[in-house]
Amino acid sequence: MYGEISELINIGRELHLRGWLPATGGNLSARLKEELICITASGSHKGHLTMEDFVFVDLRGNVLEGRGKPSAETELHLLVYRLFPEVRSVLHVHSLNSTLISRLSGDKVVLEGYELLKAFNGIRTHQTTIEVPVLENSQDMRELSKKVEEALREGPGTYGFLLRSHGLYTWGGSIREAYIRLEAFDFLFECELKLLLGGKR
Amino acid sequence: MYGEISELINIGRELHLRGWLPATGGNLSARLKEELICITASGSHKGHLTMEDFVFVDLRGNVLEGRGKPSAETELHLLVYRLFPEVRSVLHVHSLNSTLISRLSGDKVVLEGYELLKAFNGIRTHQTTIEVPVLENSQDMRELSKKVEEALREGPGTYGFLLRSHGLYTWGGSIREAYIRLEAFDFLFECELKLLLGGKR
Amino acid sequence: MYGEISELINIGRELHLRGWLPATGGNLSARLKEELICITASGSHKGHLTMEDFVFVDLRGNVLEGRGKPSAETELHLLVYRLFPEVRSVLHVHSLNSTLISRLSGDKVVLEGYELLKAFNGIRTHQTTIEVPVLENSQDMRELSKKVEEALREGPGTYGFLLRSHGLYTWGGSIREAYIRLEAFDFLFECELKLLLGGKR
Amino acid sequence: MYGEISELINIGRELHLRGWLPATGGNLSARLKEELICITASGSHKGHLTMEDFVFVDLRGNVLEGRGKPSAETELHLLVYRLFPEVRSVLHVHSLNSTLISRLSGDKVVLEGYELLKAFNGIRTHQTTIEVPVLENSQDMRELSKKVEEALREGPGTYGFLLRSHGLYTWGGSIREAYIRLEAFDFLFECELKLLLGGKR
Repeated sequence: MYGEISELINIGRELHLRGWLPATGGNLSARLKEELICITASGSHKGHLTMEDFVFVDLRGNVLEGRGKPSAETELHLLVYRLFPEVRSVLHVHSLNSTLISRLSGDKVVLEGYELLKAFNGIRTHQTTIEVPVLENSQDMRELSKKVEEALREGPGTYGFLLRSHGLYTWGGSIREAYIRLEAFDFLFECELKLLLGGKR
Repeated sequence: MYGEISELINIGRELHLRGWLPATGGNLSARLKEELICITASGSHKGHLTMEDFVFVDLRGNVLEGRGKPSAETELHLLVYRLFPEVRSVLHVHSLNSTLISRLSGDKVVLEGYELLKAFNGIRTHQTTIEVPVLENSQDMRELSKKVEEALREGPGTYGFLLRSHGLYTWGGSIREAYIRLEAFDFLFECELKLLLGGKR
Repeated sequence: MYGEISELINIGRELHLRGWLPATGGNLSARLKEELICITASGSHKGHLTMEDFVFVDLRGNVLEGRGKPSAETELHLLVYRLFPEVRSVLHVHSLNSTLISRLSGDKVVLEGYELLKAFNGIRTHQTTIEVPVLENSQDMRELSKKVEEALREGPGTYGFLLRSHGLYTWGGSIREAYIRLEAFDFLFECELKLLLGGKR
Repeated sequence: MYGEISELINIGRELHLRGWLPATGGNLSARLKEELICITASGSHKGHLTMEDFVFVDLRGNVLEGRGKPSAETELHLLVYRLFPEVRSVLHVHSLNSTLISRLSGDKVVLEGYELLKAFNGIRTHQTTIEVPVLENSQDMRELSKKVEEALREGPGTYGFLLRSHGLYTWGGSIREAYIRLEAFDFLFECELKLLLGGKR
């Protein structure tokens, strides 16, 4: 448990310095046991996390331990853990690239022809396409969570999703894998965003 | 007192590395007691601050302690402390994003629809708008301070203001809150600036 | 041997923080003896390398030592070592600049008139031109390696090559020299990319 | 002496990480005594300097001590020290902003209306203009040095100059002052470059 939390603390510090976790944006979670999730508390600054900034919840969102309030978006994390039993970590960031690419796109971002697509497991060639769904942002977590669930059920191979003008959710079978996918997504979004803003898309 | 100053020193070091405090630009202050403010000295480099770079003033700007000269813009910091008794810290940066967005905008910057708007206290939905006033830069601190006061009195919910081709002022009920607002503003200005320079605004 | 590997570990950490080695992208190698190459293992994260992430191969790709699988692109590294006996290190990165410049260019990128061209040995004036071949990306290493060999044999002074939507390969007579060329290439690609996206090319 | 050199080593490390000293580009010098200058050796990497990377020369360029060869551009540093007896440090960087702004401009870059102009000593208002001469790059140091001398003699208040597609030279009455001017120039060049590439100039 201390291992996972300290890995999330380190990732928070690094991603904050890279500008992906501005202000109190974003939240980080890990599955410690099948039905035990730790997640950053609402309002905590993800670049300066301590052990006290984590809350422990079960898969229905009941708080088991921890002084803070779990993030308002805990429901989205739990949805991913419920849908995919193999997932051990969910990372949500407010990077500039994910915020703007979601703002400038329709209902999906299409990533095509990049070697870095091979960072997603199961993909063995750059001659492929990943579609990342873009969902309308909402403060109604029940409604939003329903829409995300539909999007994820329709696309079994989905590795993440975007909320418009908000940010990216991604996950993996380990914290390391979630972190790798996060880097891959942000890099690819940055490529697409630069092409779009430079009039090359 | 040492706690607040050392927090400002750390913030200065971090923000300098992020490019928000170039050359001798910017200044950082905190309210230590109701009528006691510490502020960075004029001409000091905010990325390499030491205890000696701070000056102590009262709310009318009288120097109480400290070897340096208080920053020329001390008057603007004090104005904020006088207007808002709950404010404990005022941060002013010359980031590229605040400099350019103020140069390219009219008398305000409108931020709309971003999830990160929720970083400002009292805001609970992205379906809102924040208007950041842009004031003409001036070296006449009396005149400038009067204009800032008018702008702040008109908009009670204001979280900060921009000086054209100069930078951003923001504040909070703690140093941490001011820092969080600073990150939120700069992120949102970067989004708007990229859209503007990419012909998407 | 420990010296070279620890130099590659440090370079990996630095280049990852600069965004040139996102996710599991890129690979780093050094020639330890004439016929002994160490190279990063497939799937390792190049920003967090340890001694265990290296595999030892001979010039035909036979694994001599190491627990991991050598990178799929080992063949391209070995090709460079076979063609140029003086080369001691080959570095391959997935930087944003090399990915996008290769995506937006034809079969070569032309770098002209920059003082930084003098960073490549043998070049003593900015009034010169370097042509960097851009090859179509492929997952068929045998075919790709043949095309790269042709490109390198045709241009004896070549310092590196790009794979489209993939990244850059460069090398040198020492790890330091390969690192210097990498920095020079990325800087020059960033210049060209900014000009291109800003409509100045 | 050790103080000045270790200050230059630290500045080199920092500026390299910010991308202003790519490959072996740039050079850093300080005046230790009226007629004693230390300068980085030719070919050294300015992000990884050690004491051994410095060479000691007099104002005519005679090597007094040090194992390396002084930078080919030593002549330009010495010119500044000869013209301005109060100068204690000359810094030359190959930042992207200085490289590109010089490539896209005519014979000068005009900086106007920015608060940060006050970082240059003697300037007390943003309502002013600084003109930075842009000289054609040349490998003939004698000729180049003559042209730089003309440009500097014509503009007594000049704080620095650009070499086209090459980089920036600036200086100050202390290493700290030269560093502050460098930051101010690069910030202002980045502002102007973004406006130019975004079609706002």
